[in-house]
Amino acid sequence: MIDINQAISSLSWQREPYGLYAPIAYALEGGGKRLRPTLALMACRMFGGDEEKALPVALALEIFHNFTLLHDDVMDQAPVRRGRPTVHVRWDDNTAILSGDQMMTEAYVQLEQVEPSLLPRVLHLFNAMATDIWRGQQLDMEFEKREKVSVDEYIEMVRLKTSVLLGAALQLGGLMAGASESDLTLLYRIGERIGLAFQIQDDVLDVWGDERTFGKRIGGDIVQNKKSLVQILALENANPEQLRELRRWIDMKCFDEEQKIAEVTALYNAIRVRPMCEEREAQYTEQAMNDIMLLSVPQDKKQELIDITRKLLNRKN
Amino acid sequence: MIDINQAISSLSWQREPYGLYAPIAYALEGGGKRLRPTLALMACRMFGGDEEKALPVALALEIFHNFTLLHDDVMDQAPVRRGRPTVHVRWDDNTAILSGDQMMTEAYVQLEQVEPSLLPRVLHLFNAMATDIWRGQQLDMEFEKREKVSVDEYIEMVRLKTSVLLGAALQLGGLMAGASESDLTLLYRIGERIGLAFQIQDDVLDVWGDERTFGKRIGGDIVQNKKSLVQILALENANPEQLRELRRWIDMKCFDEEQKIAEVTALYNAIRVRPMCEEREAQYTEQAMNDIMLLSVPQDKKQELIDITRKLLNRKN
Repeated sequence: MIDINQAISSLSWQREPYGLYAPIAYALEGGGKRLRPTLALMACRMFGGDEEKALPVALALEIFHNFTLLHDDVMDQAPVRRGRPTVHVRWDDNTAILSGDQMMTEAYVQLEQVEPSLLPRVLHLFNAMATDIWRGQQLDMEFEKREKVSVDEYIEMVRLKTSVLLGAALQLGGLMAGASESDLTLLYRIGERIGLAFQIQDDVLDVWGDERTFGKRIGGDIVQNKKSLVQILALENANPEQLRELRRWIDMKCFDEEQKIAEVTALYNAIRVRPMCEEREAQYTEQAMNDIMLLSVPQDKKQELIDITRKLLNRKN
Repeated sequence: MIDINQAISSLSWQREPYGLYAPIAYALEGGGKRLRPTLALMACRMFGGDEEKALPVALALEIFHNFTLLHDDVMDQAPVRRGRPTVHVRWDDNTAILSGDQMMTEAYVQLEQVEPSLLPRVLHLFNAMATDIWRGQQLDMEFEKREKVSVDEYIEMVRLKTSVLLGAALQLGGLMAGASESDLTLLYRIGERIGLAFQIQDDVLDVWGDERTFGKRIGGDIVQNKKSLVQILALENANPEQLRELRRWIDMKCFDEEQKIAEVTALYNAIRVRPMCEEREAQYTEQAMNDIMLLSVPQDKKQELIDITRKLLNRKN
């Protein structure tokens, strides 16, 4: 079985000019779950394919994903990623933009290794995935400037911005193994649903998680008035008095962060928004599990995907 | 014959979310010489190919080129492009970054139309070209922070940042027409040489051109201490007194712009740097013309490329 971390480590970035490639090495050695390449290789194995054939696609997905983080972190002016300074902080904005552009090119360089007969389709799927991600990021930025965002709008934004990358990972892995069209459709949808459930869980943990294991500061979304599913559902389900209080905290310019986190969390608890989120998460998880059942491979071949889905979506933190 | 402006206009950007695609439409309708797609289609015609087959590559090159301008303008914080506010000024930095990323994807979307048998090679050439451009842009940014840049370093930076795109345009156009390997090598080199000559001419016109026809303000490079070939050769060939004067103007924090332009131009004239630049430009032009002679097609097929090369490189402004 391919060790994806080792495969990523063996990509060489010792190239001139150093200033262009050092930030790429830094971004890729930052760790993370390697979820996308793992899913791609897993789908390939599930359908009896040769993992080596799926490796370029797996690497392309991981490089592309980390590239989007580089540019997202510039756009959000985020200071920290995976416990380390972001590229635009460690270097500067221009470096993050340019090294990011080079990373996008490097993702397509990986695709050069794809079997020629599959390349047109892989290129199309990869481009469509990238386009969805840009559309999702654009919606995310627009939503932050808007007064009100509906649950459906939010879910569609998450689907585009983060979930299609998981869908594409499973689908591309399956494609490399020669999976049937109906299985490829299922694989894409499974990835999408896992992605949606995962993001909702992330929104919940941002409020109710355990800082020691969550990896991010608890309450960050509350402090920044981030339009997470938690906030959207709270605003939709608050009574007039709760709504006034929520709005007051959202509009407040000067506040004690700990106090804001405590008071808004108390409001969320009173509105009972956590079970609403968890119900939605459970729905998407169930849909993913049902679709996994429909894949036309023996049950034992599915176990890996079932296990990773359970592990991802039963995080306590 | 394909009308490239019409082909670009017929690309539709009326898509949701509007905020992502409107800047792309704006960037592409800004005009410009359409030099890269023109060269690609021209090379295809020269070798008897079907222009329609080269059109996706031509459009990919134009979209990619304009994408690099979007990100370059953010990095340089340039206010104006082709007489109009740049995207990051008209909208904001984040829009220019994100719509630029979408444009890069759109370039690769065009490549989906390439004949499958040629796609692996086209993808490779396109990726290699993009990598060269990022390397050139990185060198350009590094040079601006350095005290001294040699002529060779400058030429290599220009070759990477701007010339390979012309080389790739001619080569990809020829590839679409089934040109031989030796002709493809020549086409690439011809584009590179035209690009080098063109950039040197641009550096010269920035000092000695006519504002009415040059399209940019004369003396902009002098005001910004841009490490153009003119400045590099002036510093290398100045006598001690001239060098002291040049350094004084370069280091001056507060100055009258018109006075700086006049005095530095006078120094350049005294150092006789213009003929040195023009000699180099003439060398590259001659190399391009010689290589055009070596292409294995009848003389009359070459006329279009000869004419455009002459037109490009005999600008008075």
